[in-house]
Amino acid sequence: MVQRQVINASVSPKGSLETLSQREVQQLSEVGSGSSYTLFRQCVLAILNTGAQVDNAKTILEAYQDFEVRIHQQDRGVRLELLNAPADAFVDGEMIASTREMLFSALRDIVYTQSGLDSPRIDLSSSAGITDYVFHLLRNARTLRPGVDPKIVVCWGGHSINTEEYKYTKKVGHELGLRSLDICTGCGPGVMKGPMKGATISHAKQRLTGGRYLGLTEPGIIAAEAPNPIVNELVILPDIEKRLEAFVRVGHGVIIFPGGAGTAEEFLYLLGILMHPDNSDVPFPVILTGPKEAAPYLQQLHEFVGATLGESAQTHYQIIIDNPAEVARQMTSGLKAVKKFRRERNDAFHFNWLLKIDEGFQRPFEPTHANMASLKLRSDMPAHELAINLRQAFSGIVSGNVKEKGIHLIEQHGPYEIHGDPAIMKPLDKLLHAFVEQHRMKLPGGADYVPCYRVVS
Amino acid sequence: MVQRQVINASVSPKGSLETLSQREVQQLSEVGSGSSYTLFRQCVLAILNTGAQVDNAKTILEAYQDFEVRIHQQDRGVRLELLNAPADAFVDGEMIASTREMLFSALRDIVYTQSGLDSPRIDLSSSAGITDYVFHLLRNARTLRPGVDPKIVVCWGGHSINTEEYKYTKKVGHELGLRSLDICTGCGPGVMKGPMKGATISHAKQRLTGGRYLGLTEPGIIAAEAPNPIVNELVILPDIEKRLEAFVRVGHGVIIFPGGAGTAEEFLYLLGILMHPDNSDVPFPVILTGPKEAAPYLQQLHEFVGATLGESAQTHYQIIIDNPAEVARQMTSGLKAVKKFRRERNDAFHFNWLLKIDEGFQRPFEPTHANMASLKLRSDMPAHELAINLRQAFSGIVSGNVKEKGIHLIEQHGPYEIHGDPAIMKPLDKLLHAFVEQHRMKLPGGADYVPCYRVVS
Amino acid sequence: MVQRQVINASVSPKGSLETLSQREVQQLSEVGSGSSYTLFRQCVLAILNTGAQVDNAKTILEAYQDFEVRIHQQDRGVRLELLNAPADAFVDGEMIASTREMLFSALRDIVYTQSGLDSPRIDLSSSAGITDYVFHLLRNARTLRPGVDPKIVVCWGGHSINTEEYKYTKKVGHELGLRSLDICTGCGPGVMKGPMKGATISHAKQRLTGGRYLGLTEPGIIAAEAPNPIVNELVILPDIEKRLEAFVRVGHGVIIFPGGAGTAEEFLYLLGILMHPDNSDVPFPVILTGPKEAAPYLQQLHEFVGATLGESAQTHYQIIIDNPAEVARQMTSGLKAVKKFRRERNDAFHFNWLLKIDEGFQRPFEPTHANMASLKLRSDMPAHELAINLRQAFSGIVSGNVKEKGIHLIEQHGPYEIHGDPAIMKPLDKLLHAFVEQHRMKLPGGADYVPCYRVVS
Amino acid sequence: MVQRQVINASVSPKGSLETLSQREVQQLSEVGSGSSYTLFRQCVLAILNTGAQVDNAKTILEAYQDFEVRIHQQDRGVRLELLNAPADAFVDGEMIASTREMLFSALRDIVYTQSGLDSPRIDLSSSAGITDYVFHLLRNARTLRPGVDPKIVVCWGGHSINTEEYKYTKKVGHELGLRSLDICTGCGPGVMKGPMKGATISHAKQRLTGGRYLGLTEPGIIAAEAPNPIVNELVILPDIEKRLEAFVRVGHGVIIFPGGAGTAEEFLYLLGILMHPDNSDVPFPVILTGPKEAAPYLQQLHEFVGATLGESAQTHYQIIIDNPAEVARQMTSGLKAVKKFRRERNDAFHFNWLLKIDEGFQRPFEPTHANMASLKLRSDMPAHELAINLRQAFSGIVSGNVKEKGIHLIEQHGPYEIHGDPAIMKPLDKLLHAFVEQHRMKLPGGADYVPCYRVVS
Repeated sequence: MVQRQVINASVSPKGSLETLSQREVQQLSEVGSGSSYTLFRQCVLAILNTGAQVDNAKTILEAYQDFEVRIHQQDRGVRLELLNAPADAFVDGEMIASTREMLFSALRDIVYTQSGLDSPRIDLSSSAGITDYVFHLLRNARTLRPGVDPKIVVCWGGHSINTEEYKYTKKVGHELGLRSLDICTGCGPGVMKGPMKGATISHAKQRLTGGRYLGLTEPGIIAAEAPNPIVNELVILPDIEKRLEAFVRVGHGVIIFPGGAGTAEEFLYLLGILMHPDNSDVPFPVILTGPKEAAPYLQQLHEFVGATLGESAQTHYQIIIDNPAEVARQMTSGLKAVKKFRRERNDAFHFNWLLKIDEGFQRPFEPTHANMASLKLRSDMPAHELAINLRQAFSGIVSGNVKEKGIHLIEQHGPYEIHGDPAIMKPLDKLLHAFVEQHRMKLPGGADYVPCYRVVS
Repeated sequence: MVQRQVINASVSPKGSLETLSQREVQQLSEVGSGSSYTLFRQCVLAILNTGAQVDNAKTILEAYQDFEVRIHQQDRGVRLELLNAPADAFVDGEMIASTREMLFSALRDIVYTQSGLDSPRIDLSSSAGITDYVFHLLRNARTLRPGVDPKIVVCWGGHSINTEEYKYTKKVGHELGLRSLDICTGCGPGVMKGPMKGATISHAKQRLTGGRYLGLTEPGIIAAEAPNPIVNELVILPDIEKRLEAFVRVGHGVIIFPGGAGTAEEFLYLLGILMHPDNSDVPFPVILTGPKEAAPYLQQLHEFVGATLGESAQTHYQIIIDNPAEVARQMTSGLKAVKKFRRERNDAFHFNWLLKIDEGFQRPFEPTHANMASLKLRSDMPAHELAINLRQAFSGIVSGNVKEKGIHLIEQHGPYEIHGDPAIMKPLDKLLHAFVEQHRMKLPGGADYVPCYRVVS
Repeated sequence: MVQRQVINASVSPKGSLETLSQREVQQLSEVGSGSSYTLFRQCVLAILNTGAQVDNAKTILEAYQDFEVRIHQQDRGVRLELLNAPADAFVDGEMIASTREMLFSALRDIVYTQSGLDSPRIDLSSSAGITDYVFHLLRNARTLRPGVDPKIVVCWGGHSINTEEYKYTKKVGHELGLRSLDICTGCGPGVMKGPMKGATISHAKQRLTGGRYLGLTEPGIIAAEAPNPIVNELVILPDIEKRLEAFVRVGHGVIIFPGGAGTAEEFLYLLGILMHPDNSDVPFPVILTGPKEAAPYLQQLHEFVGATLGESAQTHYQIIIDNPAEVARQMTSGLKAVKKFRRERNDAFHFNWLLKIDEGFQRPFEPTHANMASLKLRSDMPAHELAINLRQAFSGIVSGNVKEKGIHLIEQHGPYEIHGDPAIMKPLDKLLHAFVEQHRMKLPGGADYVPCYRVVS
Repeated sequence: MVQRQVINASVSPKGSLETLSQREVQQLSEVGSGSSYTLFRQCVLAILNTGAQVDNAKTILEAYQDFEVRIHQQDRGVRLELLNAPADAFVDGEMIASTREMLFSALRDIVYTQSGLDSPRIDLSSSAGITDYVFHLLRNARTLRPGVDPKIVVCWGGHSINTEEYKYTKKVGHELGLRSLDICTGCGPGVMKGPMKGATISHAKQRLTGGRYLGLTEPGIIAAEAPNPIVNELVILPDIEKRLEAFVRVGHGVIIFPGGAGTAEEFLYLLGILMHPDNSDVPFPVILTGPKEAAPYLQQLHEFVGATLGESAQTHYQIIIDNPAEVARQMTSGLKAVKKFRRERNDAFHFNWLLKIDEGFQRPFEPTHANMASLKLRSDMPAHELAINLRQAFSGIVSGNVKEKGIHLIEQHGPYEIHGDPAIMKPLDKLLHAFVEQHRMKLPGGADYVPCYRVVS
């Protein structure tokens, strides 16, 4: 292991938490030094490594073992003291502005907001309460801007796509940016970066200065997928369910690029919502796209949806192969319909209140072996309920693949077992096999993929 | 009573409350239609009459008896419906932008913030808790701007001064504005308007576009002293004690112009704080000033301070007669010392955390006859404690003069009795007499002044 | 004569002339120290007295006899050195920003532009050439802003109106500003100031920060009518004919308030243009207005137009008495028609190219006794040609009243003689008499008015 | 040859020429349709292909043979009509904003300014006159911004460098941008693009929105080196001598990356100026840098300077190998000295008036065979005069390599002969050979390089 260059520094807030009361600073200091410390430290380290592309979470954590972050109270407000911090985050001793912003985004989201320091009225027992909480987290991050036309395009897809696919996401982002659209992703590498990169260039070409590159992430994933340096708004939601809800309520349309189990999870989540009878009127443009080489993959996904959720599920999206400009044109046209609809219903542009999200999608799913084994995957269920359970199946696989907790469970108890009707299990097994073959389940580390699940029909 | 021209209208938020959750809107609607309705309606009416100079509170309330304001919930957020509203607040059916802003400042401060909708953690049982609450109210009103140099000058003085004095306050404001300073007042007419008017012109001359005209008021007084139309930030604090604390923590220096009992209250409050041993190092520029004709008045106030609080109290301010430019120069120089001090102590520029305010100044004083009669006004008290009680004496007189509740008490029980050592009572009596003679206790209505108090030594 | 407080200072450009080549600075220095020096010095002195309301030109010039302004060349660019300058133009040794801007507006217009330093291609021999030159002067002053909707309202009227009339102009300006309109005047006191003052307040109320207060003046008049301090764009045109053309090409509508011979000159100029057959399609809103007391005056003017130019001339304007809001509403509606028309014709919003101005209106008129005596004022002329000559008659009277050259001629040769058909001479005589009676010809000095003309029919 | 997709469109000005007089538009239309048409059309075509990386000038011209650009006059101003234009410059029928800006930069510089439409006072007979003209062209392009700190870093080097070198220029640009510096280059590919690309990313990281990417080019080269899409200010100077003068007067420091004959020309130009006795006090940071692999190349250049211009010439720059951060740190430190010096001398920050440029560097050099053969290259000349002639030698080689005129001459008359003292000719020959070996003279087309010169000692 190479010894990295480190630096000690003290930084004051920028972009968030500039005006705190003395009591708030004190509480922040207590919480941040206590229960949340490990999580906060890990996120800070990931952020300080933004742009240092070679690292994965574990490597970073090992390389900076003696890194420390301390929260200080002073009359002026809060101050972070960093010990043995990666030197790359600084220029001649001064922290890079965007890094400083992200640092205080993390302090805000992980310590301040999620600890409930600002508002203890969180009611997570009802669907409306969960939605209110997601709203609250986004507003606190100043992400909700009233009066702006619908133009946030969510881009989903894998973090370890191939070069051809990566270039394609840049081209799509470029075309979106040429049409003044903003980008929202999961804020890591791959599909989470490409569209932002493309849009940065085209926003500059169009002389737009306020382009937004919104990154929504989770504490459990940020270390593995450090926010790419283009992200200019970073929000850390507490878990995948809140994060998914944030995506569909703050985004105005979704583009799905090739990816693995995580992308499948996102896609099923979205379809399950759009298929809900209450949402039948709500316009929500969804486009599946990829370069020519990805056509078979997209076809496979399409067939899987047809086989499991039925033909009607297939009406909620369109597939466009190898045509970035057409993707952007269709999205632009879809966003016009969104605007018209919200204006007619007096709905906010900045938060999609009208979208009904079933509580089954909102409740955190704990991917234990028992929970995975007892998932109901039956053909006779209403399709939008089956979508809920399928989403959870993929969520478990993602966890078993890359999340610390899931990996540990698999090591202890062996692969998850997933049961269900053959009519669902067969297409599922086929899709998962395809993911493995196409190296879409391959981990960054590079080892051969050993499935963390077993499909039983 | 003349029938006014009225209008019905529906307005959406501007400047505040643009992004509310559905739960917040619902609660807002409940509170605003319930317990706080009368207060909110009265404030809204005062704001809609901004700039209509001829009215006093009672006249307005009578003239628009069938005025109503309703808080509506819709998906987009909150919306106010106004019925039979004063037509002057509109241009061709569209509400004037600043009026709209003030309207939602009132909704924010009276219904949203003060009802604790946004943060129920208010702890008013300790001095630190009260300070935190004042901070919270100001921050919520976006009044606290980090990183801006100290330049908020608080101007105190009477609302019914004579023309000569009014012109003088405009000139002082003009000189302050020429030096890029901002103005903070109680937001009504007289001294609360003159300095803002002067500064508006000089800010324009200096090509400054971000000039701040901050008005701090109370619900109980806003109807009588409608915010003048120059105010571009309006904050409604719940009572006089919070309002006074807001003045001294958000302001960086104070100018005191001629006024009556209210001005004396403010002056004593400030002196009591500055005389506190803990504040001996804290720089805080205070200037008493007025036109030539006001020299005797200022001399009298100066002597009263010397006679009651002692010579050392007189060191906390300077007196400048008839020299607006010199006032501005001295203030500028004082603000430099403030900046230097805060930078050295790492204190915030936007909120004066270091200033120690005795809890006696923070606790609301209820001016009942019993409380007024039992005020300790003794020569052998520490001067900064005597200041607390003298402040309360004047506060009671203001209430008996102009606040609904106080007037009612006087009608029932006759004048307040104020007891104390002759060494204090005599100068007090003398000062109060002078106020009456100089018509500084004269009410807007115009009737002869009948004292609401009796000084007993 | 009171001795004024003076100051020496050196100022560098702001708003104009920040980037000059070394050759330009050198030429500027030569011209400004030579032929143009007297004119330039006089204008600078007037500007430095902006806001000092008590002075007239002569008083100022006498009070600051030893004032000097020197143009210096340095590598960085041009620099003005001021000796014995009025101290009021400075704050603690620093020149007020708006004064500095106006100073360099004068240097730009009087020395740089008018001396042809920037462009020697001036062709004043043709009508198109004169228009090009006016365009050039305005563009050089950065007055022409492409892509902005038509909203510049020209306000004409007297500089020495009574208090009632002055208040009325403020109210009209206030109503115009509430509707986001900008103000353009001759930049001195009276009607040239009131509408700007009103609009300043209402622009602030509407939270508009880019409000324009455009002052168009001449070197010969600026000393007598120092630009009021609200003016934020000052352009000095070389003579009254260029100035009038600038008004009608840069303004989108005109409001005429009560005034004297100068106002009549402006009104006739405008009518003469609007009556030109080529302009029959061009929309150009014109409103005559004043308070109730001014109704007879406006009626008189209206009748004079009817009697001399005919009924058709009366169709080019509307008269609105004592109704500022209605004036603003009509103007707003008129400007909509202007916008529609220019968009259809692909005409610029920032300069009215389509307006045909007869060369007779563009050629400078020299008011010698011979020229005045030989003016053709006959009933059988085409009305728009008669307007040209009537305009010149009033122009001569203005010169004989207030301009240095004209006053000198009258002293030498006695009053001008104006000849013409009785059908024109009678109404003219009547109108002029009315002006005298209503003190609209009264000079600032205050002496009784002795007519500088004699009407001979 | 593939048939490209084309489009017809009509565009109005953006960024330049928005406010033209009717006469100016008419003249523009005449000149632009006449003598300057071919040049203007060629530049427009290059600009419309910005970002289409595969093309060279000839290919573009051939591919769009029926492309036409027409200058139209309308009341509103000028308008360009494009026939059969490359479709890539448009998004859904709307021209990309930056392309539109560059288009009107070309119209401004090639037709408007260079034709002298705006100012016929050009005096190219004196050194001061030429400098004034360069100033005039830059000011007209709004490139000169008063009051901004010195931070424009000129980056020189080859357009066809290898991948390693290209990546290095990006890294240097990234480090410059992290320190808030702006980039100025010749605006094509290679070294002209890399530093801009790096700075774009780091400006975004530092949340700087006003970053400048200034491209200075010539009509004769723009078609071959289309402006890269990052350029946000484009100025087209009439010839290489004006362009070089613009670089050293508008830039505050220079970084020289590896390149070929053109880079050598630029380097000698700069050294010749800095060695001039009049400039001995003028601070001007110059850094030669490249990746590790480029070290021999930089050493070679360094030795050539020592051998021909002497050791003292070598004191005017520093060499930094493979250390982008150090390059940026040294440049930052050098710029501080520039700022200090200019402030002390009252020199402008936006234009380096104090720099003495010998007329020999300013006069256009015509690279005929006769002129090339008669260049004096003798060891006994003053070094800064030898630099002039060496610069011309390289200029001729560049022309023979890539400029249409030069290529034609070489085809007719064979290679240039360059004569001189062996002490100069030998190092020259060696350097040129090295360029060839390292493929630095290789043309974009890809053919083997055949020298256009013969060194004769």
